[in-house]
Amino acid sequence: MLNSIEESPLYRIANPRSIAFFGASNNVTSMGTHLLMSLLAMGFEGPVYPVHPKETHVLNLPAYRSVFDIPQVPDLAVIVLPTGIVNETLVACGEKGIKQAVVVSGGFKEVGGEGVLLEKKLVKIAQRYGIRILGPNGLGVANPHSKLNTTFVPHEGKPGFIGLASQSGSLITQMFGYLARLGLGFSTAFSVGNEANTDLVDCLEYLGACPHTKVVALYIEGIRRGEGFIKAAREIVPHKPVVALYVGGSEAGRRAGFSHTGALAGPDMLYDGIFRQAGIIRARSVTEMFDFCWVLGSLPLPSGPRVIIQTHSGGPGAVAADACGRMGLELPGLSEETVEKLDPFVPHTGSIQNPVDLTFAKNPWHFYSEIPKTLLEEPKGDMLLIYFFMAPQVIERSLMQMGLSQEDARKEGQKLVKMNCESIAGLLRSYGKPVTGYTFLSLEDPGIRGLLDRGIPVFQGPERAARALSALVRYVRLRKRILRTAT
Amino acid sequence: MLNSIEESPLYRIANPRSIAFFGASNNVTSMGTHLLMSLLAMGFEGPVYPVHPKETHVLNLPAYRSVFDIPQVPDLAVIVLPTGIVNETLVACGEKGIKQAVVVSGGFKEVGGEGVLLEKKLVKIAQRYGIRILGPNGLGVANPHSKLNTTFVPHEGKPGFIGLASQSGSLITQMFGYLARLGLGFSTAFSVGNEANTDLVDCLEYLGACPHTKVVALYIEGIRRGEGFIKAAREIVPHKPVVALYVGGSEAGRRAGFSHTGALAGPDMLYDGIFRQAGIIRARSVTEMFDFCWVLGSLPLPSGPRVIIQTHSGGPGAVAADACGRMGLELPGLSEETVEKLDPFVPHTGSIQNPVDLTFAKNPWHFYSEIPKTLLEEPKGDMLLIYFFMAPQVIERSLMQMGLSQEDARKEGQKLVKMNCESIAGLLRSYGKPVTGYTFLSLEDPGIRGLLDRGIPVFQGPERAARALSALVRYVRLRKRILRTAT
Repeated sequence: MLNSIEESPLYRIANPRSIAFFGASNNVTSMGTHLLMSLLAMGFEGPVYPVHPKETHVLNLPAYRSVFDIPQVPDLAVIVLPTGIVNETLVACGEKGIKQAVVVSGGFKEVGGEGVLLEKKLVKIAQRYGIRILGPNGLGVANPHSKLNTTFVPHEGKPGFIGLASQSGSLITQMFGYLARLGLGFSTAFSVGNEANTDLVDCLEYLGACPHTKVVALYIEGIRRGEGFIKAAREIVPHKPVVALYVGGSEAGRRAGFSHTGALAGPDMLYDGIFRQAGIIRARSVTEMFDFCWVLGSLPLPSGPRVIIQTHSGGPGAVAADACGRMGLELPGLSEETVEKLDPFVPHTGSIQNPVDLTFAKNPWHFYSEIPKTLLEEPKGDMLLIYFFMAPQVIERSLMQMGLSQEDARKEGQKLVKMNCESIAGLLRSYGKPVTGYTFLSLEDPGIRGLLDRGIPVFQGPERAARALSALVRYVRLRKRILRTAT
Repeated sequence: MLNSIEESPLYRIANPRSIAFFGASNNVTSMGTHLLMSLLAMGFEGPVYPVHPKETHVLNLPAYRSVFDIPQVPDLAVIVLPTGIVNETLVACGEKGIKQAVVVSGGFKEVGGEGVLLEKKLVKIAQRYGIRILGPNGLGVANPHSKLNTTFVPHEGKPGFIGLASQSGSLITQMFGYLARLGLGFSTAFSVGNEANTDLVDCLEYLGACPHTKVVALYIEGIRRGEGFIKAAREIVPHKPVVALYVGGSEAGRRAGFSHTGALAGPDMLYDGIFRQAGIIRARSVTEMFDFCWVLGSLPLPSGPRVIIQTHSGGPGAVAADACGRMGLELPGLSEETVEKLDPFVPHTGSIQNPVDLTFAKNPWHFYSEIPKTLLEEPKGDMLLIYFFMAPQVIERSLMQMGLSQEDARKEGQKLVKMNCESIAGLLRSYGKPVTGYTFLSLEDPGIRGLLDRGIPVFQGPERAARALSALVRYVRLRKRILRTAT
């Protein structure tokens, strides 16, 4: 395991102080131009040197005819050129003294034939000059903590705690907005491309040591260095969880992955074995991978698999109970003391079992305060799962019926929502137990947005919540096992 | 099978011309008041008669001291009163001549003991007067086509084609917004409650005959009348698909369901058998149930299980291929003719296999026109699945770089998005093959919204899309089997 990211060959790729950029122009139909636009939009703070054979300026930056004209030795070269001139450009970078490169250009190993030879030459050049390459056929790296984004799509949202190493570059870009909507973000995301001379294992080690990364996600179409992969993961897992999505398992996925990055996928069961040995939690979809990262990176670890469900609706409660049951989670009965404490808050139509089904709250505020507080104090519960359905229309309708104007009802409603969300967030902080929610509302519903923005994971549908909670439980077990077998 | 909904005991419950309302007041903390507010907000067009012992007006409607003071015999009584006075109220309704009632009040069979006796009495009264009851302990019915909504939550969105019978009332209310965001809606949704003298089977038969209903959804915690259920479903399935979610399968789900409606759930496998016999497609979650309804109610049926995937991103393509493979769908290779026709549109980095991975479009417009058109013409493909990621920021950024102002770039971007969406919708209409999409964007992204509003199902994540497409294939098979065994 790395003691610090500075020991990683990827350190100056993910944290360059200056960048030479090959392949951007003022033509917006060119890919390179878009990558440079993303970099500039991110507000990268070091100097950026576009290299262009003709233009004097590229996107308003002074351009250089050749890498040799750049007034310093940049930390990183980003190369988005036609395949045929990538290798000679890398030679020039090597002569200049550049030691890191992101090669975005495709047309190498992934296309077979000639491309395989070209990639061999690329690696040789890199070796000769001591250059570490991320790529080719990748989108490089997004490190919002360093205001770096070499990908095609402008970054959205805040820097976050999820470290990603991906054998799909576009997946990274397409998660910017997705994660931002959940209130999440990347610490650093690597697109490994063809892994010519840095690979998934290097990324894993980097992210294991990265102080901004609380949980590591891996998008895998095929592992090239199995032993190193398992070793690296086993060293990281005791400190931070690792989640992986492997798509080569089905025949169709295998074929698609091969034509994509040229990585050779193995049978599903082989990968199950690798992940088990490595202590990695396997996700079955992109959504699930980030759901797992969400809870693993933001919630305290549970002491056990016992979930208490709080709802005011029988159906959603039953669905959640069923989903938890299917995922191997337990729904403990409540202790007598808890039932007694809850009694004053629950109407006679409600049911003080597990799920605690209030049917309706005598006082809606208690749904966010005394009731979850009491449930977090229940010693038989390890985790709390709450069904959120605030129906702002119902609140506003009530307030208007009480004589408030529409405007005042809206404001008053917002105040209530804020108070509710803050109360739940406070309980999460105070009790050291995982608190999550599920809903069928939009994530942009003010009540849900308020919870997300305060760090409460709220899932669309109880199944996603149950699976995420079971990932928490699985991590606790995997970690224990790794620590036991490591000695 | 019913020849028309008018034969159903639920006909005047779902299509009343006038309503007597018991339990609403001017007090907004009362449940009954909220239900009446929902009804009024929906714009119900017939007369509504609140019955209240003291008020002269309820929510600005003239109120009546007793049901006998109402100047006509209303089609429907909605009763939201304390448990103890429900039965005597039903007697009065019977004396008045009312033949239909929605009983929302709880405290009957579902609470055990005394409640069981009360419900027996309720049923006896109903029999004596020939009243058909929906409930008790339910939320009644939402029929947006008739501007009827007796539930707790104001209706959102447009009338739709999904007919729901649910053993959870709150589930209905919580789907109003959910479905509206997908561009969907209920034709009619029944909350059956304790099923005192109308039940799930009655609802199933009603929805089978309902002309607005293209697909029937069932939320089930326990079936009370197994034989009738299977018979009704088998008669409907040849004409329209039926999807069911059963939550009693796990021990936890079973217990939660029992305390909720008092229905006795059976083991999961028993229900698997019932659904198989009945020709019903089983869903594993609320999300999945409505995903299935979405494609089944809005897309043409496929001739087989062969899916062609169109993407411009390798990772999302591989994930979708894997998901389709896992769901038993096939990914056929493309015929030589198709490859030839596609060649001019695909850059050299792309891959004309299945998935068709463009990596980028030489001309973005082709992604929405010539390319999917060619794929729909491929005889080896039964369905088309497209990865949508329009990245409006990228489009706007390009246009601005080309010299347009931000405002003009936004407008021009919107025009492009509209053109793209219309092209896809046109292809769906022209080729008679299912076309669906998947994305990681928000449903509120203009490009996605545009597709949803034009009737293209776009799923968040490829797994949901793959499962939905496999439900289409399953329905074709189930339907054939039922038609074969019915003769």
